[in-house]
Amino acid sequence: MASRITCPVLSTRVTSAEHAATLIAHGDNVGISGFTGAGYPKALPAALHDRMQAAHARGEDFRIGLWTGASTAPDADGVLAEARGVSSRLPYNSDPTMRKLINSGEVDYIDAHLSHSAQHMWFGFYGNLDVAVVEVTAVLPGGLLVPSSSVGNNKTWLDQADRVILEVNHWQPRELEGFHDIYYGTALPPNRRPIELTDPMQRIGEPYLRVDPAKVVAVVETNLPDRNSPFTPPDETSAAIAEHVVDFLRHEVAAGRVPPGLLPLQSGVGNVANAVLAGLDESEFNDLVAFTEVIQDGMLDLIDSGTLTAASATSFGLSDAGVRRFMANIDTYKGRILLRSEEISNHPELVRRLGVIAMNGLIEADIYGNVNSTHVMGSSIMNGIGGSGDFTRNAFLNFFVTPSTAKNGAISTIVPMVSHVDHTEHDVQVIVTEHGLADLRGSSPQDRAPRIIEHCAHPRFRDALQDYFDRAWNARPTARHTPHLLNEALSWHQRYLDTGSM
Amino acid sequence: MASRITCPVLSTRVTSAEHAATLIAHGDNVGISGFTGAGYPKALPAALHDRMQAAHARGEDFRIGLWTGASTAPDADGVLAEARGVSSRLPYNSDPTMRKLINSGEVDYIDAHLSHSAQHMWFGFYGNLDVAVVEVTAVLPGGLLVPSSSVGNNKTWLDQADRVILEVNHWQPRELEGFHDIYYGTALPPNRRPIELTDPMQRIGEPYLRVDPAKVVAVVETNLPDRNSPFTPPDETSAAIAEHVVDFLRHEVAAGRVPPGLLPLQSGVGNVANAVLAGLDESEFNDLVAFTEVIQDGMLDLIDSGTLTAASATSFGLSDAGVRRFMANIDTYKGRILLRSEEISNHPELVRRLGVIAMNGLIEADIYGNVNSTHVMGSSIMNGIGGSGDFTRNAFLNFFVTPSTAKNGAISTIVPMVSHVDHTEHDVQVIVTEHGLADLRGSSPQDRAPRIIEHCAHPRFRDALQDYFDRAWNARPTARHTPHLLNEALSWHQRYLDTGSM
Repeated sequence: MASRITCPVLSTRVTSAEHAATLIAHGDNVGISGFTGAGYPKALPAALHDRMQAAHARGEDFRIGLWTGASTAPDADGVLAEARGVSSRLPYNSDPTMRKLINSGEVDYIDAHLSHSAQHMWFGFYGNLDVAVVEVTAVLPGGLLVPSSSVGNNKTWLDQADRVILEVNHWQPRELEGFHDIYYGTALPPNRRPIELTDPMQRIGEPYLRVDPAKVVAVVETNLPDRNSPFTPPDETSAAIAEHVVDFLRHEVAAGRVPPGLLPLQSGVGNVANAVLAGLDESEFNDLVAFTEVIQDGMLDLIDSGTLTAASATSFGLSDAGVRRFMANIDTYKGRILLRSEEISNHPELVRRLGVIAMNGLIEADIYGNVNSTHVMGSSIMNGIGGSGDFTRNAFLNFFVTPSTAKNGAISTIVPMVSHVDHTEHDVQVIVTEHGLADLRGSSPQDRAPRIIEHCAHPRFRDALQDYFDRAWNARPTARHTPHLLNEALSWHQRYLDTGSM
Repeated sequence: MASRITCPVLSTRVTSAEHAATLIAHGDNVGISGFTGAGYPKALPAALHDRMQAAHARGEDFRIGLWTGASTAPDADGVLAEARGVSSRLPYNSDPTMRKLINSGEVDYIDAHLSHSAQHMWFGFYGNLDVAVVEVTAVLPGGLLVPSSSVGNNKTWLDQADRVILEVNHWQPRELEGFHDIYYGTALPPNRRPIELTDPMQRIGEPYLRVDPAKVVAVVETNLPDRNSPFTPPDETSAAIAEHVVDFLRHEVAAGRVPPGLLPLQSGVGNVANAVLAGLDESEFNDLVAFTEVIQDGMLDLIDSGTLTAASATSFGLSDAGVRRFMANIDTYKGRILLRSEEISNHPELVRRLGVIAMNGLIEADIYGNVNSTHVMGSSIMNGIGGSGDFTRNAFLNFFVTPSTAKNGAISTIVPMVSHVDHTEHDVQVIVTEHGLADLRGSSPQDRAPRIIEHCAHPRFRDALQDYFDRAWNARPTARHTPHLLNEALSWHQRYLDTGSM
């Protein structure tokens, strides 16, 4: 097996994960790689977990600030949470153990727009970054790093950290070299320049991450797989949602508002998003391109079928089968998949310039078009806002897709008032459920309510929603811009908490 | 008096406002000029009002869709509202008569981010623009127009309207020529290019608006003043707010996070904003520059004193005294004040690149940092979101400034949960009242609550807010990311509606 570490300086730093873990201390802020379960460090977190547990057993405190690209995996977020070794966490999490600690109040969770996370760190808003722990595919001379299966915030973590620990994962295909475009043109204001990207697949950077070898305190070799993202084929509900989206796009093309090849697509993670991609794959649309966060199985399908010519993202998020398919044909994907830093994949400047068509899931929407993407019943975090705000606000066209009910029908995802707002009524354009689609563009709140109730809500909840709107409308005839009954607006959520059903 | 209309083609189209008004029909969408009471058409709306009233007297319907740059004046929004001649209105309004009709449900109000309004019109999201009515300072040969005291959406309205009516206002100083930079490089996706602006005062366009003379159906001459924006000197409360802001900026400079000359300033309209500007004027800060929406009196003061070297905006918003001062010294301001289209003054790409320091007012904030800028008690619109979202989301640093109470103390502007969200907890960085400042950067909701309660809330409301937070924290130990009591979260607002006091 050829060496993955050809840098003469860094090859002398190879050590065990256990030793590397001793270089992280209580109170450190640690920036790790990882995005949607891809490219996170596989060995260091477990070794750190052991150190934390030992310290706790001795009665010592050992907790770190943990910063990532986005979600990682049970063997990263999971083990560190399990060790009770995390004091704060940003900018996105989907790990259930970590989520529990956040919701118990033990972990401070800073739920940030992904396009903000790197710059806010660099601005100094998060404090000092003590250590970066970054998985790479290979280490080349001069501190050039072949990135792994995600880029995320790695560039910023490597640049800004005092010390760097690298994990070189032999499981990652060496052929990943050439799949990345790392932009080193960012700067602090007032020295920022335009980002001269005008095409989703344009290369504006270089294929490598850079690290100052003097900062690298340890290099650990691993051979461990990424967390797989389970993939479920579209069910009836998500297929119906997909059909409404595809129909609407067809309608927009016919009206001359969207070009026949559409505009660059962004698709959130999850099964509904995959279903929409599948719907596009079965449609007449062709020669599409993606400017998105994550390459899911659905995106790979579109590339394989030729519906999608190419995709720019910041990470893979594949199932086991997807990984095998990707690896088996890796050379055919080169030049058709490009991974960038999340500050670029999600950059407002680029999302707006390219005119992205954004499609994201939600937890609930209200009758006026406000969307909650993060909180269950107003208080508990689910995952985080991720990039949904970056794309929604700056998109040419944005969709929010969701089944009309959750928890086997106990919850209506369309409510009188959302219990938390992540995307405001000023931002949300199109809401889609299996029952239909509400086009909210250029409409007032009083126009949106009947559209959302009629087209999106589950029939079982429609009358109650309409009744709420009607009574709110009549309650205060001088307050009808966004009519609400404030003592009742959140009663559906309270009822769910009290009775288990809305 | 020299002619203001030297275009040989357009000089033949000069007519009366009454005749011009006959060129607008029931059902038309009409895009008028105007931003913060500057540069709106002065004669046509009144003539249209008369036509509407006559039609209504005959039992005919006569209502238009009314689109502007932002707020206009009693002789524009006011008279059209008074005639009950408006069916829909966008993107921002502050006229009390119009507000009443919006809140009664008679006028559909589309409350849009100002940076979105021009592009959404061009994307076709608002329907066809039948007529543009634009005030200008002069009409030059070939359809070149010297813009007036605001630019707003004029470029887009002139480009996209089927028919154009110009008002040439002799009251506007002819010397306004050279105060504008109109960028004609915008395009529809996928043909958009980077906007190559890297300095707030860089000229990237031309000093003139353009109109196709063939589309101009009428030219009306007027000689009428802009609506003045009353200016109140800072009171004790706003001076205290200003002091907190200036202290914080001082602290950020000392910490090395902000350059000594700060970064380009954006300041919302109103007396608190003016007070902050006055505070900066009295401080040691110097060589500042603004990249903002509106040139208020406070901004003029800063330019006069030399604290501010220059300001880019989209409009003036001066008091009578401010207008006199500006006009008396107009030549000294040339090159130091530049007016742009609002799609440029508020552009996410530019606001983020320049690293703007944004300062805006609010109606209420909650203990977790969500901000309501638009709705009173959840249902009634006050003005609209304006550019606050464009600047807040993309700023280097954003402030929300407000007195801690309203309505003589009956209302706490810090509440358990805001009754409407315009700026989410993911976006809001610093909240400031006369009692202090809460720095929310890089903090979790559970950290934000005590900071906001302790530093920002009025002492009279602190215990009740803390009590709410404590009880919410204890109510559901597995739901502590953003602890809320849903049956009580909006009870402060309901109490105000019921009793006149929170």
